[in-house]
Amino acid sequence: MWKSVKRREVLKGAALAASAATLAMPAIAQSSPTIRWRMTESFPKTLPNLYGAAELFAEQVSQATDGNFQIQVLAPGEIVGAAQALDAVQNGTVESAHTSGNYFIGKEIAFAFGTGLPFGLNARQHDAWWHLGGGRELFNSVLADYNAVAIAGGNSGAQMGGFFRNEIKSVADLNGLKFRVSGLGGRILSKLGVVAQQIPAGDIYPALERGTLDAVEFSGPADDEKLGFIKVARYYYSFSFWEGSSQAVFMFNKQKWDDLPKSYQAILNNVGQQAHNWMTWSYDSTNGPALRRMVTDGAEIRAFPDDMMQASLKSANELYAELSGQSPAFKKCYESLVAFRGDVLPWWQVGEYAYDSFMVRTRGRS
Amino acid sequence: MWKSVKRREVLKGAALAASAATLAMPAIAQSSPTIRWRMTESFPKTLPNLYGAAELFAEQVSQATDGNFQIQVLAPGEIVGAAQALDAVQNGTVESAHTSGNYFIGKEIAFAFGTGLPFGLNARQHDAWWHLGGGRELFNSVLADYNAVAIAGGNSGAQMGGFFRNEIKSVADLNGLKFRVSGLGGRILSKLGVVAQQIPAGDIYPALERGTLDAVEFSGPADDEKLGFIKVARYYYSFSFWEGSSQAVFMFNKQKWDDLPKSYQAILNNVGQQAHNWMTWSYDSTNGPALRRMVTDGAEIRAFPDDMMQASLKSANELYAELSGQSPAFKKCYESLVAFRGDVLPWWQVGEYAYDSFMVRTRGRS
Repeated sequence: MWKSVKRREVLKGAALAASAATLAMPAIAQSSPTIRWRMTESFPKTLPNLYGAAELFAEQVSQATDGNFQIQVLAPGEIVGAAQALDAVQNGTVESAHTSGNYFIGKEIAFAFGTGLPFGLNARQHDAWWHLGGGRELFNSVLADYNAVAIAGGNSGAQMGGFFRNEIKSVADLNGLKFRVSGLGGRILSKLGVVAQQIPAGDIYPALERGTLDAVEFSGPADDEKLGFIKVARYYYSFSFWEGSSQAVFMFNKQKWDDLPKSYQAILNNVGQQAHNWMTWSYDSTNGPALRRMVTDGAEIRAFPDDMMQASLKSANELYAELSGQSPAFKKCYESLVAFRGDVLPWWQVGEYAYDSFMVRTRGRS
Repeated sequence: MWKSVKRREVLKGAALAASAATLAMPAIAQSSPTIRWRMTESFPKTLPNLYGAAELFAEQVSQATDGNFQIQVLAPGEIVGAAQALDAVQNGTVESAHTSGNYFIGKEIAFAFGTGLPFGLNARQHDAWWHLGGGRELFNSVLADYNAVAIAGGNSGAQMGGFFRNEIKSVADLNGLKFRVSGLGGRILSKLGVVAQQIPAGDIYPALERGTLDAVEFSGPADDEKLGFIKVARYYYSFSFWEGSSQAVFMFNKQKWDDLPKSYQAILNNVGQQAHNWMTWSYDSTNGPALRRMVTDGAEIRAFPDDMMQASLKSANELYAELSGQSPAFKKCYESLVAFRGDVLPWWQVGEYAYDSFMVRTRGRS
């Protein structure tokens, strides 16, 4: 049953296992070579829930290999900028990167599925789709043209809709709104009049301060607090329909990956899961207290108006039809994710969601 | 930031890493010793979402160690029964087990926190509490008296309330109801008149068939379908307030664990996360289709009546006060989990839950 996870690696592993006990010294030495890699980060050091996943990855790989496999994590700009991570992996400037598929949708729109689809899956559903629903294979089939392979590298969970200088009372208020909003969310909202801007995390605050932005979304409470948005905008909107889940990825140069011993590939896969999980644990542990502090500091929580939500859903479906016509890779990923969502949501409604409903409704009494 | 995960192991690892590059052959050989372990399973082979996690664990440990570390998974009864797993680990009959904390609450009620608390955390919240909220350390401090250590070993996510021969129209219908219900759920429902029965998975169906049970809960749709409950009962209740999340654990004999090289401990930790995740992916992928098939086969979905839910919540809070008075370990775990829940739920309501609400409400239109 579990073999659907990585059937091929395991079959090769079984063959190795059968003979390993009788191998002499040189083979053991060969199977644990000394390796030094560099990993370029697309997320700033100031956001520990993101950057910390790369640090954890590097340290755990070292642990699991008795220090033989060392990965040096480099902040954005130390070698290349946040948005150049894929180029750097592709041409071998670095062996690996910790980044987001969304940063590269200018190259191929299907890279969005490495992050998540607006009105798509929540983090846990995205994990299941990625690993057992074919998502990982689809994403990597796109990435193969860029000489790279990827594994999951963390997920923030559902994000907030961002900080707005003024309230959004209806969909009409989006007209002309200068909004820093990432990925496909920007494409969807542009159809409703938003002037969508893509600005790397480190440059958002200065732009807000200069007043060149009316609103900004980056992530959830923990990150948004650190980026200081509350100092320049007051209305904090829930929720981000464009990032009900936002996955990061670890990317590896394809040749460098293929050259690794199978045991090291297995270690990267397993350590990747540890780092992936850690990011979600970390957001789930820090978002609540950060939200409470920001509300104390004057943030006013708002929900997007219903007419905006309905118009956004319609706009998203139109966009997906257009993109499916333009990119065969997008079409494949989209159809796969939507089919998975169709299977999982009816169960969610009866199971997870029903449980969460009761807990949210009765909190304070239990 | 991430160092809260396992600070000590990492510090030791850094020291190793500094010297590893210059080590000669014998040290390398010593750091990858050949090890053969046995793992007794508490879950039957017929339930692949549970049993498969142990198989995946064993195969990935072999992969990551080039076949040097082999773990043989043994089904319940091959060495010891499902409920003897902890005894067998404690006395060294086996080095490891894949089991559930709930199976051992007769020894110490705080073991329930290895599985999850009724009206407690959902699976993702439980993960965050376990790893960053102190849950793992608390559980292991209890387990230390039993010469064992544990890591997370999978989570089913929210479970169903079970199959009932007759509808439950009000809390009064619980009076005298012979119900197979696990862990603390049984204790809570006993206060409302239920005759709670603990029966291992493999023995439930025969008991149902003989009519010695009026109702049975085991897990969610995927497992419940395989156990054939639909053949003997018709009303399928959502949701299980006593298992909003149900975690399995990998347990290890403490001396055996301590004797492992640090690199192997790191590998078990990381591979454990892979197996832990896989179980949830697997349930999230299979529950939806299983639910659909059972509804086609005549299952009628019902929700527990509100007066029963309210009475159960009250009964749970009373029970927790009693148990906190009886067991200092329970009190510590309970206070820790409840504090975490208080931090996470307000964020959940605004973030994850708000997103899920919209998706559930609009499904079929996106």
